[in-house]
Amino acid sequence: MTTLTASGARTLAVRALVGLGYPSADAATIAAHLMDCELRGLGMSGLARIVSIADRLGAAGPAPEPSSIVRTSPTSSRIDGRDRIGYLVADEATTAAIDHARSAGIGLVGAHGTWYTGMLSVYAERIVAEGLVTMLASSATPWVAPHGGTQARVGTNPICFAFPSHGDPFVWDIGTSAIIHAEVVLAQRLGLPLPDGVAFDASGRPTTSPVEALAGAFASWGGHRGSGLAMSVQLLGALAGAPVAPGELRDFGMLVLAIDPELLGGRDALRASVAELQASLQTTAPLDSAHPVRAPFARSVAERRRRLAEDAIEVPDAVVAAVRAIADR
Amino acid sequence: MTTLTASGARTLAVRALVGLGYPSADAATIAAHLMDCELRGLGMSGLARIVSIADRLGAAGPAPEPSSIVRTSPTSSRIDGRDRIGYLVADEATTAAIDHARSAGIGLVGAHGTWYTGMLSVYAERIVAEGLVTMLASSATPWVAPHGGTQARVGTNPICFAFPSHGDPFVWDIGTSAIIHAEVVLAQRLGLPLPDGVAFDASGRPTTSPVEALAGAFASWGGHRGSGLAMSVQLLGALAGAPVAPGELRDFGMLVLAIDPELLGGRDALRASVAELQASLQTTAPLDSAHPVRAPFARSVAERRRRLAEDAIEVPDAVVAAVRAIADR
Repeated sequence: MTTLTASGARTLAVRALVGLGYPSADAATIAAHLMDCELRGLGMSGLARIVSIADRLGAAGPAPEPSSIVRTSPTSSRIDGRDRIGYLVADEATTAAIDHARSAGIGLVGAHGTWYTGMLSVYAERIVAEGLVTMLASSATPWVAPHGGTQARVGTNPICFAFPSHGDPFVWDIGTSAIIHAEVVLAQRLGLPLPDGVAFDASGRPTTSPVEALAGAFASWGGHRGSGLAMSVQLLGALAGAPVAPGELRDFGMLVLAIDPELLGGRDALRASVAELQASLQTTAPLDSAHPVRAPFARSVAERRRRLAEDAIEVPDAVVAAVRAIADR
Repeated sequence: MTTLTASGARTLAVRALVGLGYPSADAATIAAHLMDCELRGLGMSGLARIVSIADRLGAAGPAPEPSSIVRTSPTSSRIDGRDRIGYLVADEATTAAIDHARSAGIGLVGAHGTWYTGMLSVYAERIVAEGLVTMLASSATPWVAPHGGTQARVGTNPICFAFPSHGDPFVWDIGTSAIIHAEVVLAQRLGLPLPDGVAFDASGRPTTSPVEALAGAFASWGGHRGSGLAMSVQLLGALAGAPVAPGELRDFGMLVLAIDPELLGGRDALRASVAELQASLQTTAPLDSAHPVRAPFARSVAERRRRLAEDAIEVPDAVVAAVRAIADR
């Protein structure tokens, strides 16, 4: 592992992204997202992602045109991403959803024609910082078999709910597959096997090979209930204008919903309720005293605080070398 | 088991509900919901529920005042249920959400001060019949321990997404606990044990006793991911104006979101996408050829068609006797 400072890692990311052809403002937006993944201990979605972006862009470079708002109402916007990377399209969608919610109390934004929307909680944190509640969902290439099946039909399809609180917000942000795409791609790059039970090869047999999994299907999570949630997210992507079966790393759909609590029970009451639930979780008797009950996001935020305080991010040597090679092209 | 015709079961339900003090129109609304549960093979939420309603109402009878809309905007309504039963409050909330979505493209309705909201897919079917997409969620009394804990902190908290299609809609409607409240109550009435691994007693030890489970906590479903969804639903209930920890069978919160696809990708495109996903699920190679891959709701709808065609509903003798006793009071 190589240890980088936070600013060193960020500078490296920006250099590499500029090297891939992104304007510096866009590179900074993408790098900020990737750094948040590193700080929160999700390295497979951090610097390593730049190698995947380089592979996806190939010689063509970033999408030449900006994304555009193709339909709008007082409460909604529809964004055509025009193949622009998801970190940028989702950032625009988040801004639009916040604007609608500020003026009309609720904002619904659908974006399509994008790819790699990243970690939804990054956008969720921006929305809850405004005192708003949010739901976000993002569809993807069919890489995941539905419950009971062995052929890919839905994406890894993250979904996120987030609520403002008095302190750290409540953020629930999960992938709906047994393993996320970035984990499989990183295992492939590092030559590591997958855990048992998370993937099928193209003939429907269980596999631990990331190469075979990418040619076959990842398993779903949570039995028929989790699998149905993944299907629902695929359809939320379709609602946003994406095809039901996007091509490889393109045509993802994304939905951002922002709600001002003043429409219903009010902002102050909601913050108090969220803080009350967070406190009640902390005082829940655990099954195992070594593993206290936690709210989702709590550990991730603690890791971010720790890494920022230590100013140290551990990244696999092979990832640092690959990103440096892109930056030095 | 006693075999009832659909109309015989419905007439019995209406008689019993009128006997409990509901006006006949309200009794018909509640009975229609309970019949849909029976037809779909979810008997624990069907006629058996009338015994639970009778227990909850006690000598006081139904809430004397109608629920009321306490705050409204072009896209939203907030409903104070005034302790009215959820089947009626959710029916009003659904009507309001549809009205908002028809006029403004989107409708968000929060209801609080209610209990027993029933099966969310009943309301979802009304909304998708209008060509709209919906998300519904309902919070409840803390009966469920979060992942890793043994003390109740969240409700059984159903959540539902539904989308219109060319034929049957796509409906995903799940409870976020390992077992639903109605199953535990029915097991208690019939003197049956619970399955292993779904409940804790008040001291935090695993139990199969429904009495001990009701005094302790039900287990959560889906590990930290499923448990986080249950927490999110509890907070959606709080957004609707409910307390984070409602008292026993009161003060539930419910959220209904209805979206006109014309705001984004359009109604026709969405229906085609939903039908495409449904068809692609049917052609997915199964893990086990005896268990084809199914869309959620598909089996439930098939069961409803079969029971309607056979005009036969099987209900445990003890349940029929208890409901007849209420009807004959």
